[in-house]
Amino acid sequence: MSEAHAAAGGVPKRQGTLFDRVCLIGLGLIGSSLALGIRANGLAREIIGVDQNADHRAQATERGLADRIEANAVEGVRGADLVILCIPVGSMGAVAAQIAPHMAPGAVLSDVGSVKGAVWEAVSPFLRADTSFIPAHPIAGTEHSGPRAGFATLFRHRWCILCPAEGEDPARVDRLEALWAGLGALVDRMSAAHHDRVLAVTSHLPHLIAYTIVGTADDLEEVTKAEVIKYSAGGFRDFTRIAASDPVMWRDVFLANREATLELLGRFTEDLFALQRAIRWGDAEALEQHFERTREIRRGILDLGQDTDRPDFGRRPNAPAVGGKDA
Amino acid sequence: MSEAHAAAGGVPKRQGTLFDRVCLIGLGLIGSSLALGIRANGLAREIIGVDQNADHRAQATERGLADRIEANAVEGVRGADLVILCIPVGSMGAVAAQIAPHMAPGAVLSDVGSVKGAVWEAVSPFLRADTSFIPAHPIAGTEHSGPRAGFATLFRHRWCILCPAEGEDPARVDRLEALWAGLGALVDRMSAAHHDRVLAVTSHLPHLIAYTIVGTADDLEEVTKAEVIKYSAGGFRDFTRIAASDPVMWRDVFLANREATLELLGRFTEDLFALQRAIRWGDAEALEQHFERTREIRRGILDLGQDTDRPDFGRRPNAPAVGGKDA
Repeated sequence: MSEAHAAAGGVPKRQGTLFDRVCLIGLGLIGSSLALGIRANGLAREIIGVDQNADHRAQATERGLADRIEANAVEGVRGADLVILCIPVGSMGAVAAQIAPHMAPGAVLSDVGSVKGAVWEAVSPFLRADTSFIPAHPIAGTEHSGPRAGFATLFRHRWCILCPAEGEDPARVDRLEALWAGLGALVDRMSAAHHDRVLAVTSHLPHLIAYTIVGTADDLEEVTKAEVIKYSAGGFRDFTRIAASDPVMWRDVFLANREATLELLGRFTEDLFALQRAIRWGDAEALEQHFERTREIRRGILDLGQDTDRPDFGRRPNAPAVGGKDA
Repeated sequence: MSEAHAAAGGVPKRQGTLFDRVCLIGLGLIGSSLALGIRANGLAREIIGVDQNADHRAQATERGLADRIEANAVEGVRGADLVILCIPVGSMGAVAAQIAPHMAPGAVLSDVGSVKGAVWEAVSPFLRADTSFIPAHPIAGTEHSGPRAGFATLFRHRWCILCPAEGEDPARVDRLEALWAGLGALVDRMSAAHHDRVLAVTSHLPHLIAYTIVGTADDLEEVTKAEVIKYSAGGFRDFTRIAASDPVMWRDVFLANREATLELLGRFTEDLFALQRAIRWGDAEALEQHFERTREIRRGILDLGQDTDRPDFGRRPNAPAVGGKDA
């Protein structure tokens, strides 16, 4: 008998399921994709969805995302052996305080937040000793939000980082890892602090820069918004995709990973000033050297299968693959 | 008898061709795509390709890009009624000086450079009075370079901006416009100065920012390059695509559009500092308001068909279209 079954009560699990009852709190892009993926891969016997937004609940019902949909998180977590917080990181502490007393003995609480240190600080004080909090972050997403945006394969071939606390029960971590692996994700483990430094580079700073440049473009007098939109294929549109991401989620990310973001922003600004100076003084060699170097990182990303080599990311159906590396 | 025919000598054109002999100087991504597109659409009777790089000439020969391939631009332009410079903007003046005396009477010289004011300054002094220089800029490209990267449909549904000088022969401008339209492009006309301001926003600044952030990430000590690559799907990889663009081409673009780029960079930095300050002081409202606003521009780009609405630009073949707007 698996630990999950033993922990969460007497309902028999189907062969192959990892969890008996999974409760997903928040049915946005990630929550709804988890619901669809868990069901498609038979990873839990029962899925409970919780969302405080009535429109989200209606859309989730329409898509049949869960076996039961609740407005109240306390109702949702009862008897669940796994509870996953799929809400903005700024709300996780308050929800943890609310649900912790009602979680099943031995249940695992996890999350999908983009910041791990601040979430640990906010959530862990409320946890009962007979439950576990194992922070997780699937590095997957699209620029779309809400229950209608989810799809079962969102996590396939994407990394999911687990940040278990020292001393966490290894069997519980393994079982959570098996869930993500069952969704098709590649799983890695690291400390919350290191996670936050890595993601500041690979995600938080890029989003901040993208939000900034799109705002700058919106404010110009000599160039109209219509022109910016019309000629966006020159590079600008690549930034607009991530600058269309969920505003509340990203507000919380920057506030929760403030230190690492500000540190990195300082370095970025220094580097930008160096290139600005090279442009002002016509230092052709410095510019070319810098631009040569950045090509290598791109090559590494393609080699690792974390992007497609098709021109324009394959935006054009009739564009050929280049170099034969396309997935 | 068309003007092209009359101007460029006595070889009869096939029905439907716009030009008799087109000479493409530079067989990189744009030059090779022009060659393939002009042939596929029957827009010229004969295509001459020029490239000073022997590897490029070999690759162009291998792909059958042109009817004749020359190392020497002077040989290439003889008898051509249209000559298009498809080389970095910093080299255009020198090549114009070399070819101008050998161009056919009545021939049109054009280019595909990303900057128009500096190119006009560099090229026009060398032009003979019986030829025309009509600057053009197709806003199309991929992160790949060289004769192997070209494809015939690169310009389809993309904008091409013509910047004819005041007093230019309207028939010649119309004929060049017809060539671009024949390649599937949408054609617009504006002054070189306005072009350079528009492109500074939609293309030059985004490229500079992308080059910077990829360099910043490459320099970190606490986060390894392997980690940056591994977790790049969080947003970073979108920047790496444009930061992998041709280094020499982009070096020249920034130097040639120095004023507009520096002006805009100043605004961008101000805006970035405002968001940085909001993060430092925990101004959640300012952040959320900014992030809400930037969503609208994205919507405009999708509505105009200048990008795809598929999650991740359709990087994943199994991801559904969202909102039914996908092309």
